[in-house]
Amino acid sequence: MTEHSLWRLSRALHRAINDRQFDALTELLDDDVDWAIYGPIDMFPFLGARLGKDAVLETIRQIADTVHIRRLDRETLMLDDGAAATMVRCAMTTQESDKPITARLAQFMHFRAGKLARLRILIDTFDLVEQTLGRPIDLPRIGSFA
Amino acid sequence: MTEHSLWRLSRALHRAINDRQFDALTELLDDDVDWAIYGPIDMFPFLGARLGKDAVLETIRQIADTVHIRRLDRETLMLDDGAAATMVRCAMTTQESDKPITARLAQFMHFRAGKLARLRILIDTFDLVEQTLGRPIDLPRIGSFA
Repeated sequence: MTEHSLWRLSRALHRAINDRQFDALTELLDDDVDWAIYGPIDMFPFLGARLGKDAVLETIRQIADTVHIRRLDRETLMLDDGAAATMVRCAMTTQESDKPITARLAQFMHFRAGKLARLRILIDTFDLVEQTLGRPIDLPRIGSFA
Repeated sequence: MTEHSLWRLSRALHRAINDRQFDALTELLDDDVDWAIYGPIDMFPFLGARLGKDAVLETIRQIADTVHIRRLDRETLMLDDGAAATMVRCAMTTQESDKPITARLAQFMHFRAGKLARLRILIDTFDLVEQTLGRPIDLPRIGSFA
């Protein structure tokens, strides 16, 4: 039984972000990888859409410049032939000030011949922004109920 | 071939939110359903964790009081025996002012005997907050690169 591509990719991403070792990741990205992490790109320029291996590697370098991963807890996992969906809680520290930040991410991945062909990541971005700012943002209460 | 529980649940949720018809949904919730939609509960009190059918039905009533669903685009889908993961783009209008709001949601569902036993939803909440406020929130730029 062969290992699912998700696990190889997860290890490669982890090594790229934490150890700046990009060789394994380079091997596991499809040349035309279609990549998007939804979120406020004004604050986090490494979020957003990327097309192709070079653009994705550049983004991962920027992420590596910004955070260090401390811990990953996989809360939900679905695997299929050539696809994976997972929800993870990712504890990080910022490179600049060692500030702890925890984000929950939903990841949807499609693989072609064992390489990542499509990635979509959703993040609870409001929580991420507040943690990064280090203060709450004042919000009105919405809804027609008390 | 029986229909996957996801489709019955999706139709029931849609009818509950848009038409306030809760019968089908009531049938499709496990008594002990474990439910969480991550997001700023100060602004949106119907987000957050709920335990049990009654608490979930009450939350769906609050959502129905707040928004109307206009359109659902399913961008990613994975189905498994008794589980589903999907990313949808949901176009809504607010009940109060008919303001259009579009949110991308990642949904992870587990079913027990055809009923929803566990649900986790992640939303690009910063985007949702900005749309609801009707104005951008000023953010600093983060990261060690130009």
